[in-house]
Amino acid sequence: MLTIKNIGELALFPPGPIGGRAMGKVERITSAAVVVDEDRIAWLGPESELDASIGGDVLNAEGGCVLPGLIDCHTHTVFAGTREHEFVRRIAGDSYEQIARDGGGIRVTVEAVRSASCDQLVELALPRLARMLRNGVTTVEIKSGYGLTVADELKMLEAIARLKKLQPIELVPTYLAAHTVPREFDGRGDAYLDAILDEKVLLRISGEGLAEFCDVFCETTAFDVAQSRRVLQAAKKFALTPKLHADQITQIGATVLAGEVGAISADHLETIDDAGIDAMKKAGCVAVLLPGCSFYLGVKQAPARRLIEANLPVALATDYNPGSAMVESLPLVMGIAATQMRMTPVETVIAVTANAAAALNRADRLGAIRVGMQADLVVLDVPNLERLVYEPGRNCVRTVIKNGSIVVSPG
Amino acid sequence: MLTIKNIGELALFPPGPIGGRAMGKVERITSAAVVVDEDRIAWLGPESELDASIGGDVLNAEGGCVLPGLIDCHTHTVFAGTREHEFVRRIAGDSYEQIARDGGGIRVTVEAVRSASCDQLVELALPRLARMLRNGVTTVEIKSGYGLTVADELKMLEAIARLKKLQPIELVPTYLAAHTVPREFDGRGDAYLDAILDEKVLLRISGEGLAEFCDVFCETTAFDVAQSRRVLQAAKKFALTPKLHADQITQIGATVLAGEVGAISADHLETIDDAGIDAMKKAGCVAVLLPGCSFYLGVKQAPARRLIEANLPVALATDYNPGSAMVESLPLVMGIAATQMRMTPVETVIAVTANAAAALNRADRLGAIRVGMQADLVVLDVPNLERLVYEPGRNCVRTVIKNGSIVVSPG
Repeated sequence: MLTIKNIGELALFPPGPIGGRAMGKVERITSAAVVVDEDRIAWLGPESELDASIGGDVLNAEGGCVLPGLIDCHTHTVFAGTREHEFVRRIAGDSYEQIARDGGGIRVTVEAVRSASCDQLVELALPRLARMLRNGVTTVEIKSGYGLTVADELKMLEAIARLKKLQPIELVPTYLAAHTVPREFDGRGDAYLDAILDEKVLLRISGEGLAEFCDVFCETTAFDVAQSRRVLQAAKKFALTPKLHADQITQIGATVLAGEVGAISADHLETIDDAGIDAMKKAGCVAVLLPGCSFYLGVKQAPARRLIEANLPVALATDYNPGSAMVESLPLVMGIAATQMRMTPVETVIAVTANAAAALNRADRLGAIRVGMQADLVVLDVPNLERLVYEPGRNCVRTVIKNGSIVVSPG
Repeated sequence: MLTIKNIGELALFPPGPIGGRAMGKVERITSAAVVVDEDRIAWLGPESELDASIGGDVLNAEGGCVLPGLIDCHTHTVFAGTREHEFVRRIAGDSYEQIARDGGGIRVTVEAVRSASCDQLVELALPRLARMLRNGVTTVEIKSGYGLTVADELKMLEAIARLKKLQPIELVPTYLAAHTVPREFDGRGDAYLDAILDEKVLLRISGEGLAEFCDVFCETTAFDVAQSRRVLQAAKKFALTPKLHADQITQIGATVLAGEVGAISADHLETIDDAGIDAMKKAGCVAVLLPGCSFYLGVKQAPARRLIEANLPVALATDYNPGSAMVESLPLVMGIAATQMRMTPVETVIAVTANAAAALNRADRLGAIRVGMQADLVVLDVPNLERLVYEPGRNCVRTVIKNGSIVVSPG
């Protein structure tokens, strides 16, 4: 038993997905306590109503706000190499296309990942995950997609599987072999899809639990709608739930496809249109926005307010990757969403907890503080949730509890 | 003696101010070493040329990049209270004016500072400065301006004076009594100026070293050009060097005034015009940009590229304050400048070192790595300076050396 006392504000909202105006609603219990029994939340309420006979350990929240553990539901945290020189070229005005023509872009990361061993990928990712945990993040989705051969994609998924056992964050693997067409298949995207959608490959990924989701970059420079449909329908046969990189740069109908295939989420959405919004609503699809990416690229943000007004459940994630979003801090991304997209602090909190859990098919267990839910909790050093978003760039996390255990302590 | 060995990249540029294209130029010595003798840099160069007979302590930079200690040349770090509820109202669409009419805005901070003792202001500022130091910041300018009575302004300056002795960062105090017209003087700005420009007050501030600079918020909602001129001319008589909050919201000629009075810097500049640029160039005025503020308010950034092309020396600072820029991380502000203003990483580094030192009249001693300069140095955990800007929101600082002493160590 672990009792968290002296909680300045306990933030309560239902499990996700939470759409539209309901995203602005939070119940706050002040002077609260939470009792954790093994890995579950056993009781919560005003500290004055706490059963005095409860034994076990006590954690003093020192008046801090307590939130569900944060969930980063779209990342590329397993990668090798950095691309700071490309970053400098983009600032100087070179386009992504120019940089790609000169051998830059995603292919640089693909080469580095292909050259790395699984052990090396694990070693590179561990400190990243350790820093994410200190930022209050207790669940992270990680995509493959920098191998672009069956063997290298499997190596990335294997690295994620190993990382699960080496640190406390719950990792959620996604198969993103359809990230881009690799150099060897230039002009032969369908042939590349033949390789990565081989039934034996999908059977292994699904059977060994190497991925839960299958994602595709549906974009003029990657895979068109017909190809993306093919990827996601093939994956569904092997119980890999569809996700899409959709409507980022060009409007080609990716979010309409998301609705059609019943994707659990469509991610990016900078150029989403009304048809896409309708399709996502009908399919119950979570809108995952990645404001750190638009910030990093210095381009227009997704229309968060429009999506919330359309009653979609909006989630936020870092998109952490070495090309378009070398931003690993989910709280900073919440600050970017607040200042650049006008999402309120309450909306950003729900977007990285209840709705992010829904985007990862874990809303029954993660993303909200309720009796019976998993005890993934973050204790802040500030008295209300607004302060977490009000101070971008400062780590306000004092203590992190994962699955009932204290995994980050103050100092 | 302290020898820093195994430096992956030592970034060299001349002392500030550095204007225009020269801001893009840096000399990089790889596999470098630096020798520190007492508080000064005694030698620097390739490690292969290091005198093997030098004794003393050795610091292994482990291949990290070494930069001058970062300088935050425009902050309001001494304050009391927070304004997260106003932050939420702004996101919801309320204007600063509406919030001010409802009793919000700067006056909330003024009330909190007036109610606080000098000791309390010191206690509140200490952890902020400790975090700034861990971000590699070794010199911080701090303004008064939340007291708005002579006694409360002196209390703020006294707090800065005490803070100088309590922690390693070099603090540079600025008298900003002309921050806004306090409630008691509503509609009587000139009468307020009579009070704060009283010769006995200015004599004490100058004589006791309570401030080095005098700043004024030259804006339609604060002090007009004639009033601002009066403030800065009065201050100059007492050897308080002029600075201005200029051209932030409205173009009323504040940067032209900066040139006229020979201000050492004009800060903000979101609405600067050609006349202002010319005036600043003629006066040798440093352009201090505050991209964290525009980011925080979700408004247009200052035209950094235009100012650099006009050959002005550009500095960057956080503007850290509880209303318009609750952003304490200078490296994050460098990232905002790179992604939102298209300043290159090299330009951002020079902007927070050589040029920030120039904005604080310390370019002879701080802001560049040269033999004879003060040994304020930052060792990064990344091999080149680009990486510091490439990874916004991650603290890349491994070791901080202030005045020849190690004040932040890894871990």
